[in-house]
Formats: sequence, C-alpha cells, structure tokens
Amino acid sequence: MSKPILILGGGPAGLAAAHSLATVGQPSVIVEKEDRLGGAPILSGYAKLVPTGEWAKDAIGGMVDRVVDDSMVSVRTGTTVSRFDGEPGNFTAGLSNGDTVDAGAAILCSGFTHFDSVNKPEWGFGTFQDVVTTTQVEQMISSGQGVRCPSDGRKPQRVAILLCVGSRDRQIGREWCSKICCTVSANMAMEIREELPDCHVYIYYMDIRTFGLYETNYYWRSQEEFKVKYIKARIAEVTSDGEKLIVKGEDTLVKRPITIPFDMVVHAIGMDPNVDNKDIAATFGIDLEQHGYIDAANRYGAMGETSRPGVYVAGAATGPETIDDSIAQGHAAAMAVLSGLKAQLEKSA
Amino acid sequence: MSKPILILGGGPAGLAAAHSLATVGQPSVIVEKEDRLGGAPILSGYAKLVPTGEWAKDAIGGMVDRVVDDSMVSVRTGTTVSRFDGEPGNFTAGLSNGDTVDAGAAILCSGFTHFDSVNKPEWGFGTFQDVVTTTQVEQMISSGQGVRCPSDGRKPQRVAILLCVGSRDRQIGREWCSKICCTVSANMAMEIREELPDCHVYIYYMDIRTFGLYETNYYWRSQEEFKVKYIKARIAEVTSDGEKLIVKGEDTLVKRPITIPFDMVVHAIGMDPNVDNKDIAATFGIDLEQHGYIDAANRYGAMGETSRPGVYVAGAATGPETIDDSIAQGHAAAMAVLSGLKAQLEKSA
Repeated sequence: MSKPILILGGGPAGLAAAHSLATVGQPSVIVEKEDRLGGAPILSGYAKLVPTGEWAKDAIGGMVDRVVDDSMVSVRTGTTVSRFDGEPGNFTAGLSNGDTVDAGAAILCSGFTHFDSVNKPEWGFGTFQDVVTTTQVEQMISSGQGVRCPSDGRKPQRVAILLCVGSRDRQIGREWCSKICCTVSANMAMEIREELPDCHVYIYYMDIRTFGLYETNYYWRSQEEFKVKYIKARIAEVTSDGEKLIVKGEDTLVKRPITIPFDMVVHAIGMDPNVDNKDIAATFGIDLEQHGYIDAANRYGAMGETSRPGVYVAGAATGPETIDDSIAQGHAAAMAVLSGLKAQLEKSA
Repeated sequence: MSKPILILGGGPAGLAAAHSLATVGQPSVIVEKEDRLGGAPILSGYAKLVPTGEWAKDAIGGMVDRVVDDSMVSVRTGTTVSRFDGEPGNFTAGLSNGDTVDAGAAILCSGFTHFDSVNKPEWGFGTFQDVVTTTQVEQMISSGQGVRCPSDGRKPQRVAILLCVGSRDRQIGREWCSKICCTVSANMAMEIREELPDCHVYIYYMDIRTFGLYETNYYWRSQEEFKVKYIKARIAEVTSDGEKLIVKGEDTLVKRPITIPFDMVVHAIGMDPNVDNKDIAATFGIDLEQHGYIDAANRYGAMGETSRPGVYVAGAATGPETIDDSIAQGHAAAMAVLSGLKAQLEKSA
C-alpha cells in the first residue's frame, strides 16, 4: 500500500486506528508526546472501564501490546509533530526529535485534558485534603490501595460525588457536557459500595445523563442493587466543620437548602480540550470548534474529516467522548483514510 | 480475500460496514428485509439529521448510492435470513427466497423498531388527531409540506414535545433511555421555530440528556437563539377541551400542577428492540440482552463481537444509538471481522 499513516496520539482512538490499518496491511506511525502508549486510561491509572467492566490495564493495555507487537506499526513516544506539509497522499511530518516521516494522511487522536479542579475553588479541592477527583479515586481502586481519605487513611463512611465539575458551567467557561461522567460516577459509586459496604454514597446531579442502556446498567442498578442515593441539587460550596466536610446547596426538587456532612467529596471532573490543541491546529493547519476541540466535519459518508483534506480526527479530540465510541471512531477514521486514498488513486489513474 | 461477509440490514451501520469492506477489497452481501436500503432515516423519511444538519435523503441516500454502485457489494432487498450454519470463515446462510450464500462472517446491523405510541394511551395518541410522533413531524418537514395540525391543516401556534415516550418508563416495560431523543427534539423544536416563527414550542422533560457538545449546539442554542421553553415535568395525561389539546402534569421543579393548552402535541418516541430480534437470535444462534437488544460483548479490543464467534453486531441493534455512532460502529465491526479472519488464517497457517 501507500506511505504510512501518521497517527497523533496513542490512546484508545489511536490504538484502534493503528490496528485497523495494520489489519489490512497499511503501515502507520504513532507519534505520542508521553513516554508510553495507552492515553488517559493507562496514564491516569483508570480502574474498571464503562461499559465492559474490564480493567483499563488489561483492556487498553492489551490494545497497546497488540500494536507494539505489530510490525506494521511504528511507535515514537516522547515525541511531538512540529510541522506537517504537503497534500493528501504525500505529506511530510517533521518531528520534535529532528526526524522526518513521510505520510499518506494523518489521523489526530490527541484526546483531551482532564479538568483541573483548582479552577472550581469554592468546591473545596486544593483546600481540603479529602476533596479528591474521580481520577484520584480510580487510582485508589486500580492500585489496590482501596478508597481511603487522603488526610488520615481512614475508610470513609460517607462519600459525596459531585457531578459536572468543569462541565455545564458557564461561570468558568465550560459550557459543554462531558458526556460520560454521570455513568462513570454511577459505576464508581457501585465500586465504593462493593469495597466498603457500610459507606453511604450520594451523587449530586443537575440532570442524570446515563443514556441508552446505561440507564438500566448504571443508574437503576446503582440505586436498587447498591443503594446509591441521588440528589438533584445546585451546590453552593464545600466547607468543613473541622471534622467533616460539609456540602451546602439547594435541593432543586424540593426547593430547600441542604447541608450534609461527608468524609470524602469526589469531583467528577470533566474533559477540557487538549491543552495542546492550538499548537496542533497550527501545525496541521486545521480548524478548532468554538470550545477549542478539533472541528470534525462528521459528514456521515466520511467520518472524521477535518477542515484539511487528508487530515482526519477521532475520539475525544473532537469533544467529550466515551472510550468505546473513541475506539469505534478510531476504526472509522482509519477506514475514511483508506477510502480517501483509494478515491484519489482512482481519480489519478 | 475470503468469502463474502453477510451484512444483515442496510441502514447506516450496515452501509458503513459494506463500504469499509469494499474499500479493502472484501466482498459483502447486504440482506435487507425491506424493499430498499437506508434504514430508519430513509424508510421513515427523516428530515435534517443530528449532528451534521445534512438531509437524511442526501446523507444516508449518498451512502446507499455508494454501496449500490460498488461491485464489491451485493444487495438482496425484500429478503431475510432463515438459517445460518457453519463456523468462522466458513458459514452458509439460507435466504427466504431459497438462495444460499457462503459467508466468512456476519455483521448484524438490524437496527431497532420505533416505539408505537398507542402503547401510551393516556398521552392522547390515537385519540386526538393532533397528537403526533417525532417521526410524523420529520415527515412533515422532509416532504416540504411543513408542520401542520393533521386535523385541519392549520399552522400550530403552540406545540408541546413530550420526551421519553416509550423510554425510561417501567410501567410499560421500557426502562432504557433512547439516548438521542432529547437532542433530536431540541433540533426539531428549532426547525419548527424556523418555519413558524410565531409558534411557541415547549419541551417537557425528565432529565435533559444533550450530552457532550450537544449541550451547546442543541440545548443552549434552542433556548437562546430559538426561544424554545423547557419544562421539567411529570406528565399525567393529554386531553382536549374540544378546541385545544390540554397537557396536564406536575412541574417537578416548582412542585405544582401545570395545565397548558396546545395546538399540537408531539411524542418523542423511543427505540424498541427490533421486533424481529427473537427470530434473528434463533437464526444466528446469538444471545439477546435483558431488554431484547442483541448482546454485544463490546470488548475494547474487538468491538461488536456477539456470543457466537464470527457473528458481529453494530448500531442500534445493540441498544438505542445515534446515527453517527451507528456508522462508526459499522466501520469498527467491519474491521473486527477482518482482524478476526486474519488471526484465524495465521493460526491455521
């Protein structure tokens, strides 16, 4: 086949794209800025993934191994792309290490950046040790340590998970919904209850967005089988009485103030656009959408096209995305690349 | 390459899978029970699709044309599969017309069945002519007729769209969320306001699930640019005072009864499992999940596997699904098929 396909980012979408291409004998080069592959699920130490329940290190780790073992895929970690010139079928990428790579096309699988909870100071992160993020709880679970209060290592008896931290929040410039935090939080609540059966877990929400079959498998299951409690609330602040964390807000269904003590408060942090997106857009000559994600044309006939012919995009680089949809989009973008190259070949023949 | 791949269903997922396979030189056979390809967007006459804004007849119609024109894809419309025997790499399908097709693998892209609103009689469908479904409004728009009250053809001045009709409703055995109705309804509300600027449009909801970037592009845009009104409510019934339709319920945010007159009431109908799923499961020897959708293993490394090796699934056959995710899954399943066949070949070599 033609020149290798450049894949920017070795997370779920990029790993799927590389595997698809390799399957049909098309070489690719994954350029990953971090020092190893796997993206957020591996680098941030996620525990069991939604919706399959596989451990991240097995599920995504297996995708990493498959790609690393494949002679069709070349991997450059700790590397970025500094220029990308040419046209479809005939691009040249300049890498940060001085190397040059010829490429028939590029697929941007550059993912997202976790919201930093210090940008929501009134909800206690950075002020109180026992206010943590979903990512930290994932790490507590995946490391085998278990869910413990960072301040003193005790098992929490009452945990609050606050949804939409860094999502659906115009005050801090993040209007979008991060799509999967509701379901991930329901899953996490069940994992906490499984490890600590005496612990009460509350989820504070605006709208519960456990879409599709997640409604049964996460929302209802967490309530009925695991006794997780859901409160529709507007949260004012997280403070402390010296002993417990205090979550203050208004229950928006019964229209009255609620003040509840907890041992641990978890921020269900959202997905920001990748902090590098402006650089990526400049290097690859592509457009970003209004929030700073990579703009996907999303024509149904050609998934993952960007504003520049020959440059495609997949996964959370396009906006908040689930892992399984990112993987499906990675495969789809690989096919769009091959379809585009084939059409070009037929045209020039 | 190997024997053709059998694709059951010629909707968005099946069309994507066939195109992917054709792109890499792998023949396929689409078996479609209806007399033409395109699935729900074409057969039910959808208007502009979420999220691209393309007309269904152009977007999905283009995917149909591409597949029909491709010599790698054979199409059998008005046909069903009556038996499917053999093993991965070497299946034989018996068709309803008596033909036999050899197949290396199968991808079930058999989609869903629209909820029938007569199963929710207290909400007025079947009793009052001006209570219609989202599908009927799609057809009013796509036909060019415009949004009109069926009873007398007048332009409605007040329209209510009721979400979750046939979704999230245990009373009628439909616990799941249909995933995309919130966003489709927000889109439809904007289309109505665009055609009829004097018409007031209300959306009655339980939770607004405009996930990801749909939050900005549909939920906020519909409110701020198009003045669509959202009411969080539990609906009791839809009746008539002889002149107007009356929607009675309880506003669950202010906890008081609300009774509002409308000219037209639209049921945002959900997605039921395909009515043929029991037959499909028996024919292909695969499992259904608890609600009756086709059970997808959804291992991250091999999207779309079912309980039977060599038989894959994609799109709304697995549960309520969006069109773009169905397409991505169709591409992904095609790749899983090729990857599986390749692994088998290497094993036997």
